[in-house]
Amino acid sequence: MAVSMDDDVPLILTLDDSGSSTSAPLDDLEREELPNENGGSYDVNDASSPAAGDCCAQQSSAQHNWEMNYQEAAIYLQEGENNDKFFTHPKNAKALAAYLFAHNHLFYLMELSTALLLLLLSLCEAPAVPMLRLGIYVHATLELFALIVVVFELSMKMRWLGFQTFIRHKRTMVKTCVLFVQFIEAIVVLVRQTSHVRITRALRCIFLVDCRYCGAVRRNLRQIFQSLPPFIDILLLLLFFMVIFAILGFYLFSPNHSDPYFSTLENSLVNLFVLLTTSNFPDVMMPSYARNPWSCVFFIVYLSIELYFIMNLLLAVVFDTFNDIEKRKFKSLLLHKRTAIQHAYRLLITKQRPSGISFKHFEGLLRFYKPRMCARERYLTFKALNQSNTPLVSLKDFYNFYEVVGLKWKAKRNREHWFDDLPRTAFLIFKGNVPCFNGSTYSTNTVVAVNGIWILVETFMLQGGNFFPRNVPWSYIVFLTIYGVELLLKTTGLGPVEYLSSGWNLFDFAVTLFAFLGLLTLAFNMEPFYFIVVLRPLQLLRLFKLKKRYRNVLDTMFELFPRMASLGLTLLIFYYCFAIIGMEFFAGVVYPNCCNTSTVADSYRWVNHTVGNKTVAEEGYYYLNNFDNILNSFVTLFELTVVNDWYIIMEGVTSQTTHWSRLYFMIFYIVTMVVMTIIVAFILEAFVFRMNYTRKNQDSEEDNGIVLEKEISKEEVVGIIELYKRSSAATDTSQLQKIVLQMDKYGQMSTLFLGRRSRTKSDLSMKMYEEEIQEWYEEHSRKEESQAPLQESAPASNNFLKPLSLRQRSQTVI
Amino acid sequence: MAVSMDDDVPLILTLDDSGSSTSAPLDDLEREELPNENGGSYDVNDASSPAAGDCCAQQSSAQHNWEMNYQEAAIYLQEGENNDKFFTHPKNAKALAAYLFAHNHLFYLMELSTALLLLLLSLCEAPAVPMLRLGIYVHATLELFALIVVVFELSMKMRWLGFQTFIRHKRTMVKTCVLFVQFIEAIVVLVRQTSHVRITRALRCIFLVDCRYCGAVRRNLRQIFQSLPPFIDILLLLLFFMVIFAILGFYLFSPNHSDPYFSTLENSLVNLFVLLTTSNFPDVMMPSYARNPWSCVFFIVYLSIELYFIMNLLLAVVFDTFNDIEKRKFKSLLLHKRTAIQHAYRLLITKQRPSGISFKHFEGLLRFYKPRMCARERYLTFKALNQSNTPLVSLKDFYNFYEVVGLKWKAKRNREHWFDDLPRTAFLIFKGNVPCFNGSTYSTNTVVAVNGIWILVETFMLQGGNFFPRNVPWSYIVFLTIYGVELLLKTTGLGPVEYLSSGWNLFDFAVTLFAFLGLLTLAFNMEPFYFIVVLRPLQLLRLFKLKKRYRNVLDTMFELFPRMASLGLTLLIFYYCFAIIGMEFFAGVVYPNCCNTSTVADSYRWVNHTVGNKTVAEEGYYYLNNFDNILNSFVTLFELTVVNDWYIIMEGVTSQTTHWSRLYFMIFYIVTMVVMTIIVAFILEAFVFRMNYTRKNQDSEEDNGIVLEKEISKEEVVGIIELYKRSSAATDTSQLQKIVLQMDKYGQMSTLFLGRRSRTKSDLSMKMYEEEIQEWYEEHSRKEESQAPLQESAPASNNFLKPLSLRQRSQTVI
Repeated sequence: MAVSMDDDVPLILTLDDSGSSTSAPLDDLEREELPNENGGSYDVNDASSPAAGDCCAQQSSAQHNWEMNYQEAAIYLQEGENNDKFFTHPKNAKALAAYLFAHNHLFYLMELSTALLLLLLSLCEAPAVPMLRLGIYVHATLELFALIVVVFELSMKMRWLGFQTFIRHKRTMVKTCVLFVQFIEAIVVLVRQTSHVRITRALRCIFLVDCRYCGAVRRNLRQIFQSLPPFIDILLLLLFFMVIFAILGFYLFSPNHSDPYFSTLENSLVNLFVLLTTSNFPDVMMPSYARNPWSCVFFIVYLSIELYFIMNLLLAVVFDTFNDIEKRKFKSLLLHKRTAIQHAYRLLITKQRPSGISFKHFEGLLRFYKPRMCARERYLTFKALNQSNTPLVSLKDFYNFYEVVGLKWKAKRNREHWFDDLPRTAFLIFKGNVPCFNGSTYSTNTVVAVNGIWILVETFMLQGGNFFPRNVPWSYIVFLTIYGVELLLKTTGLGPVEYLSSGWNLFDFAVTLFAFLGLLTLAFNMEPFYFIVVLRPLQLLRLFKLKKRYRNVLDTMFELFPRMASLGLTLLIFYYCFAIIGMEFFAGVVYPNCCNTSTVADSYRWVNHTVGNKTVAEEGYYYLNNFDNILNSFVTLFELTVVNDWYIIMEGVTSQTTHWSRLYFMIFYIVTMVVMTIIVAFILEAFVFRMNYTRKNQDSEEDNGIVLEKEISKEEVVGIIELYKRSSAATDTSQLQKIVLQMDKYGQMSTLFLGRRSRTKSDLSMKMYEEEIQEWYEEHSRKEESQAPLQESAPASNNFLKPLSLRQRSQTVI
Repeated sequence: MAVSMDDDVPLILTLDDSGSSTSAPLDDLEREELPNENGGSYDVNDASSPAAGDCCAQQSSAQHNWEMNYQEAAIYLQEGENNDKFFTHPKNAKALAAYLFAHNHLFYLMELSTALLLLLLSLCEAPAVPMLRLGIYVHATLELFALIVVVFELSMKMRWLGFQTFIRHKRTMVKTCVLFVQFIEAIVVLVRQTSHVRITRALRCIFLVDCRYCGAVRRNLRQIFQSLPPFIDILLLLLFFMVIFAILGFYLFSPNHSDPYFSTLENSLVNLFVLLTTSNFPDVMMPSYARNPWSCVFFIVYLSIELYFIMNLLLAVVFDTFNDIEKRKFKSLLLHKRTAIQHAYRLLITKQRPSGISFKHFEGLLRFYKPRMCARERYLTFKALNQSNTPLVSLKDFYNFYEVVGLKWKAKRNREHWFDDLPRTAFLIFKGNVPCFNGSTYSTNTVVAVNGIWILVETFMLQGGNFFPRNVPWSYIVFLTIYGVELLLKTTGLGPVEYLSSGWNLFDFAVTLFAFLGLLTLAFNMEPFYFIVVLRPLQLLRLFKLKKRYRNVLDTMFELFPRMASLGLTLLIFYYCFAIIGMEFFAGVVYPNCCNTSTVADSYRWVNHTVGNKTVAEEGYYYLNNFDNILNSFVTLFELTVVNDWYIIMEGVTSQTTHWSRLYFMIFYIVTMVVMTIIVAFILEAFVFRMNYTRKNQDSEEDNGIVLEKEISKEEVVGIIELYKRSSAATDTSQLQKIVLQMDKYGQMSTLFLGRRSRTKSDLSMKMYEEEIQEWYEEHSRKEESQAPLQESAPASNNFLKPLSLRQRSQTVI
């Protein structure tokens, strides 16, 4: 320690001619040695002024400057994590205030709830859901209110970004324009007291998309738009073949007057488009097939080329583009994070010690970056980052910041079970449980399987009888008892907390609870809760644990869930746009017996007529697939997504409106095709990626996420407590003191801590692209160097006080 | 040369104590020097006896032994190429004769035609195609005849393999069993003079699958079976969810008596299975949706889980397995070829020169391996293989045998065009053409596009009018003239041969020819040929050349075509099996108005009734989708493959037979799902692979296949001619002499030859797996070495005279 301080001294003297002399008293006060059993020691009390502090002659000013630096570094790191571009970095103290205001969860929640309010308004507007209909005044006022909140949000953003950056940020500008249009329309509605055709309501989605919490949706949309060019190429190929076949089909089949499908070129085109979705398949062929069996060749060739070749080609192209984009995205994210770390690093080093960050500064950073982190975890994070035994974290070590900061630290216990502390007899009982239920996994599974077959057979025997027996069947009680005993054994064996921390156990618990509730329902004959009994088959889901592949599939599913949910949300946003448009144009056009002139009249016919003494109901339910309100529209759009028989809906609507309505349905088909193809590509990519990963790392079978081990000696802990006590920041050191007490109790000189976190997609990618990543880094640093002259205008200083460098501003947005 | 011979002499003396003394006269006779301008020289006349020749004291015997060695080496190389396992290698002279008999194209053709005959018999048997119906005697006799031919083929195979190997070769044994069953059945049919239920006819496919020409189909089937285990796992998951939802659906919807879809558990299961294919989608939901709008949640959840998640998972799993198998297959093929080359190499080196193969022996090998190759090409192949300048091809060089032997050699001309030899004036005219049509590509494309739009507009205007005008429209003549002129220009510019060697030009030519024929048809009013006029829209296909991506797609399509065709054939084989089974059980069960008791009665109703004074035909054409003969069955099965409305066919048949018929349709659906998923996976893999490849090699844009350049000097050619003249084999050296004459004419001392072949999938894979291949080789050679003791029993000898080594026999079959 003494040596390292001696090394520092000359550096202070030569470099730091303004600040260090004043901060010397503080230095002297805190200059203590903190021995470390590893042989090295951590210098936690170097409070020399920041390298950029050039106008501070007093200690408080130096301290204030440091606080500013901590805060800006934390902001840089947050920007790196959230993939915010640095040109939106707050540039001065005013901007910083606005930035901080606009970057907390309350603000985010406000953003989200206004966006949701705006979207939900369409439940109550003009073609409203009957139960939720509101007066025009009410919903227009609500809308105006929501829009004003959005205006407020945008003004905060402008304050933070500054006008120049604000108008250059495309997404924000689009949002502003949409806001403007919505405002005018809302006022027009209020004035006219009636709704006009408001297709622009479809644009309300942009408020949701722009929310902080919808970053994943934005990424999906970007990815969809990036995949479009090759997609469109192949789509044109598809349409091109369609036109050729339409002309051919028209020439071949229009002489047959009993064939309504090819009577005109337009019919021919429409029917071949529908045929592409196979929705009208054997029917479209039948009239010509009945006349000449060889005409099936036309259809077989068409389907083979279009459906089985080009559509798969589409998937291949999207899959390929998707993979490529995924990799490039990962690369840019990685490099962005790296740059953010570099920025933060520059703000945290001192002139005296430019080779690394001391714990004091690191702790200051974490105070802003993760305010909830306790003192113990901060120190452990610092130790985990520090690969060398010096008291400073170098830039190279600091690059691992994001990987390490997410770890949850726990003292490694020497005792295996929670009941180790109990008296001897109780201990032995619990101890016996553990192997017992481990060994009984198979027998439990057998029980579940038997139960499953039982339910199946029982249901099968129950043809249309009384579903809800007055008496509780004995099988129900037997199986429930078995599950209950198993649950009890496991809980006592593992302890309630550890038991419920496993997803599978939680699932078991929930299923058993439901079964128990069902039993109660039956026993006390509570009719309104019979739905719980109906859910009984879900117990069969427990069989999943039987096979490793299924467990893998489910695990992957859970891992993918956030991403899948964001894709689903993206799809819903498209649905919303189309639902609004559909409602504006097609609300109320479809009703029972509406389409008697069209070819699909049967599906809309709804007649009760009496034959003999029996009432025969001819029920074509398709009039239910309408655009009468937004919920109905969503169901209709889902039916269109599933594609089967979608042409019946299309023809029904078309027969009541114009030919051009078909465009709506066809465009919707193509849009969902794009989104669905991307979803398929995503699932494909994710699973293939994971399977490859598993194949590569077959040795390490049980994969419990990322684990890191760190040992802390008692002296270190005491030293840190001392430091905290003397420093001005009021930090809670009770946890640290508890550690010291524990060590005293067990007479240990040091404690081992385990840092854990679950593996993310990014970790997997890191491992997959290991080799390439090095290349990227080198390429990146070469680029950095070549751009260094430009960057020198803001080398390591506090950006709040200086103009942004040109290089940073030139980065692209969205 | 002299030096190298001196090096050889001691080796001959020490090692070869039996054969070389007798072959000395020949050696002396042929020992001449053949100077080579490269500084090295090729020793083409080393006729020392083979290393394994141990019983030959006379020259003719040595020569005979060499011939045997050449032949066996050629067989080894063929086995390597065809992926025949070495344990089927002919073991003695008798087996060799049978092997040679069974391995030529006449025999293959016989195999193929008997298999096809057997398959085609089902056109004429019991539920026969009306036009092709044959008497029982006739088709049973034909069948017996074909079966006898198969017996003959199998006996030849037994003769070649030997009884021991024969009964251990699984595929052959299965074939024998099937043959036996077929034989008995054919005789029973002849005796009883009536057909019985002959489901075993479905097994006739095995005769086709076993054909030499259907190797690709065998590979596909193997790949399908290898992909099955993971596929079945996911399929079970799918069915499991289906059962859970069926029970749930039964409980939820069966109280609704207007809902026929969930009235019993069986109905519930069947309808959810059909829902998986989306075939009954909005309909199955409608009755419950009409009663309670929230019931749509059940269907949305079911479809999201089953259709959008698990089905995609299925694709992902198959895709992943497929890729993995593809790679392993490539590896094993590569190593098999390598082993084959090693075997061949051992047979071709001499005791005197164990370090390589001389041209004389190489030429002997090629005489058997590629009898059609001319002397010039043989020598060029040898030179292309020989990487060093020594007169011998080492084992390392010989490993490239398969890559080099397929090259087509052509002298590189110094003159660019075929008309360079013409008189000056004509030359200038033709010369002018070349840039002219190169520059006019864009204008040609414009013409095609205009023509396309013209046809489209013309067809659109022609709503139901007279399709075939009496007068030829002028537009037709204009466009045809333009195409004709373009064709003429291009042909004269490039010369007819080179013009037609490009696929695109060939396509242009065919299209123009068709258009011309159409013109003639119209001009001379030949009604029966109007179909040519109908094909006119196909001209639009020329627009494809416009964009590079489309050209790439089409090129890839052509590259993939053989593989796609084999996959199609595989699908057809499955179709055949199902068609036979379907015909045996369901022939004649479906007819107009057959299914009035079923839920799909409308689709089968076929009534003409008079309303007022108009005849209204209610035509449900579905009775056409029957199993009445094999052609109808194929069309029906294709409709089932397309999946849409397949349940109508299923329900129709079920209502006429039993519930169990559904199993047939469901199993067919699952089988086609497997095959289709594999086809999708294949297309995906192939395209993604190619796109990756293109991305990796973006620099070398124009990719004309594999090209190799070799220079030969005049002296070499003369030397080879001399060698051939003196050798006993009667080889045509006229081509070589022509080269000498040409060189004399132009006063050149050497000619440059270009070897070309198109790139295959294997070449692409070689490049993709470049790094891994080295590892595989090393691993393989380590294995070889560890097994060397076993192998020494047949080190480099002629296997026709020795027992097969144990190691070779232990390799697995199929």
